[in-house]
Amino acid sequence: MTHPTPTLADLGHQTHSAAQHLARLSADDRNQALEAMAQALEAAAGAIVAANQADCAAAAIEGIAPALAARLTLGESKLRSAIAGVRDVARLADPLGTVQLARELDDGLVLKRLTCPLGVLGVIFEARPDAVIQIAALAVKSGNGAILKGGKEAVRSCQAIMDALRKGLSQSAVPPAALQLLTTREETRGLLQLDRYVDLIIPRGSNEFVQFVQNNTRIPVLGHADGICHLYVDRGADLPKAIAIAVDAKTHYPAACNAIETLLIHSAIAPSHLPPLAAALQDKGVVLKGDDRSRQILPSLTAATPEDWATEYSDLVLSVAVVDSLAEALAHIDRYGSGHTDAIVTEDEATAAQFLAQVDSAGVYHNCSTRFADGFRYGFGAEVGISTHKLPPRGPVGLEGLVTYKYQVVGQGHIAATYSGDRPKPFTHRDLPQDC
Amino acid sequence: MTHPTPTLADLGHQTHSAAQHLARLSADDRNQALEAMAQALEAAAGAIVAANQADCAAAAIEGIAPALAARLTLGESKLRSAIAGVRDVARLADPLGTVQLARELDDGLVLKRLTCPLGVLGVIFEARPDAVIQIAALAVKSGNGAILKGGKEAVRSCQAIMDALRKGLSQSAVPPAALQLLTTREETRGLLQLDRYVDLIIPRGSNEFVQFVQNNTRIPVLGHADGICHLYVDRGADLPKAIAIAVDAKTHYPAACNAIETLLIHSAIAPSHLPPLAAALQDKGVVLKGDDRSRQILPSLTAATPEDWATEYSDLVLSVAVVDSLAEALAHIDRYGSGHTDAIVTEDEATAAQFLAQVDSAGVYHNCSTRFADGFRYGFGAEVGISTHKLPPRGPVGLEGLVTYKYQVVGQGHIAATYSGDRPKPFTHRDLPQDC
Repeated sequence: MTHPTPTLADLGHQTHSAAQHLARLSADDRNQALEAMAQALEAAAGAIVAANQADCAAAAIEGIAPALAARLTLGESKLRSAIAGVRDVARLADPLGTVQLARELDDGLVLKRLTCPLGVLGVIFEARPDAVIQIAALAVKSGNGAILKGGKEAVRSCQAIMDALRKGLSQSAVPPAALQLLTTREETRGLLQLDRYVDLIIPRGSNEFVQFVQNNTRIPVLGHADGICHLYVDRGADLPKAIAIAVDAKTHYPAACNAIETLLIHSAIAPSHLPPLAAALQDKGVVLKGDDRSRQILPSLTAATPEDWATEYSDLVLSVAVVDSLAEALAHIDRYGSGHTDAIVTEDEATAAQFLAQVDSAGVYHNCSTRFADGFRYGFGAEVGISTHKLPPRGPVGLEGLVTYKYQVVGQGHIAATYSGDRPKPFTHRDLPQDC
Repeated sequence: MTHPTPTLADLGHQTHSAAQHLARLSADDRNQALEAMAQALEAAAGAIVAANQADCAAAAIEGIAPALAARLTLGESKLRSAIAGVRDVARLADPLGTVQLARELDDGLVLKRLTCPLGVLGVIFEARPDAVIQIAALAVKSGNGAILKGGKEAVRSCQAIMDALRKGLSQSAVPPAALQLLTTREETRGLLQLDRYVDLIIPRGSNEFVQFVQNNTRIPVLGHADGICHLYVDRGADLPKAIAIAVDAKTHYPAACNAIETLLIHSAIAPSHLPPLAAALQDKGVVLKGDDRSRQILPSLTAATPEDWATEYSDLVLSVAVVDSLAEALAHIDRYGSGHTDAIVTEDEATAAQFLAQVDSAGVYHNCSTRFADGFRYGFGAEVGISTHKLPPRGPVGLEGLVTYKYQVVGQGHIAATYSGDRPKPFTHRDLPQDC
């Protein structure tokens, strides 16, 4: 006799109920659950590594690309560091129950705004099994349930990890049903329709994938669509700084979304500064594509086409354009940028201030590399993702991106009619200390 | 010779450019523009009132409902109070440039998070011409452009107001193109597609309309879909408080989204408390619909159908259900509530604390009326809308709902490679005073 497969809606409902229970637990209970998860992962390390070896072997037969294979592989040392990450998350400050506002509305009538969990997260990610561990830890810390779906090549690894995580939770106050794993593509599409039970979708992967998710769900999506970052070398730039920053921003990790794709350079210094900049970049293996004016200075550059300005290469390729003014640089960034992170190199403080004020991106940088756009580097302790949405959360998102808030009003029988009509009583609207 | 009508995309682009200019202006410049708007409205008062009389006359011929006619009418006194509202907005604290976070990442490398405008707002509202004035004032204050579309019955009034507002802006530092008025339904649909230029859509109107907007745009939407608020009268309730709060929450303004639609009452006190509660409500003209158990106590009540629990009456109608426990009340609210505002009446602090912690709504109230759920009552000075989305902004939204933030990083040539690799330099991550 077989049990019927529970439908995805049932699974959504179960996760929602478990998340409601989780949301009520204390920070100590949630941190103890994280420790139980870490211990269960340690106990299951052999099984997890074996499952991963099976995934890797199957992927090798399929002829997986080396970069994907590297992400898929979860050896003992990578697993150990992922488990250490769970304990790091346990040590982060509790994101729940923070009083963001406390105000007396009238005598005996008090308003508070308190942070609380979102509910259930739906996270769809690439074939990177350690991501299951990281996401599960962030979810439990923030009091949220999570429904996870990893890349199909990692299915055995993800299952072994999830088994361990839920075994750990069974030794804690957190219901194991707060964490769920999906394994098929059909379930992914179904997850996007679970707006009754899922409060936030976090897609990780290619731009195309993120856009597919955004176009196919009514659930809010946390994710960036593009990372087309610019470095503008102003006429007031210090050349050694410009070279160091350009090389770092392009070559430190070219596949990252915070790597630059376009270098803009002021025409007044392009003849003197572009050749050494180009040489330093080419020395690191960067292929440069130039507009007409940069090719007048460096005729060996490939011609950039209009598409280049809107392309995220994610590779050792950089497009270069010469501009006549800050205004022209700003117009280029406004037209082609993706609102991720853009930087200026200049010693001219007034020009820098204008750039920082006028570029409308999540990150606006002066005399430093765009590569700092990262939750860990910002000191958030954890990174949930980087959002290029205009609305908050914007830019690198830490645990605060997994919580919301609610307004609590406590009275003593107060009614609204008292404060309206012919002789309305005035509100006091007196801010209170936030630890009241 | 006629000029070609600019396409909606052109209009979007113009508004975007004007908004970029507006975003750079100082608080003084924006407040002066608000004063210029107020003065231009005063100067055009005669023309505006005349245009409104023409709208009202045309609507009367069409046989408009009295409630709609009341909203449409803009006499001199209502106009004066709307103009006073513009000056009130000018007096609010500047929402821009607030430092939300200031942190040294390393020596000479400083991160700041600063509030900044969203860009361009798209606001679609009912046939209420004074809304144009209010929205325009909030947009200019928050440094945003705005594309407005009012109900078709108000087209002459809206046009006369917009003419005055732009005339006022022409005497200020704010480009008049920052404010735009659309007049046709086709333009509304077009507005929803302008995701390149419009950063937030604020729809005002019926639930159906808000849902239509949510389903037909990729632009983020600020708006609530339903206001199904509950009042739970616990076994520990004080009867006079319960009666006062129930009457206020249902009858003070039944069409408001923060009015209650369902009364839940604990079975232990229902026999004694429900009859006087019902009498007080019926005395105010409320029609009560009951579940089986409340009809055992009050047989004259109409039977509530399952649809009743999910219905926003927006009228003097209230559904009543008897529950055996707090848990049952919580389950009812979780199943049928819309996440707007829910209240408990009880003298039992432990039960109240459980209710406040476990109800997952934007507003959770103890011993006071749900009618307090309002931006002005919360002391926000202005209300942009009330959001029932789980993600922030949630609940009543003031000016802060019209701004976002960006991260600014200023270095002295700092690169990311310094902080990674074999001998990574540690970050200092030292929080700085926010006025640094």
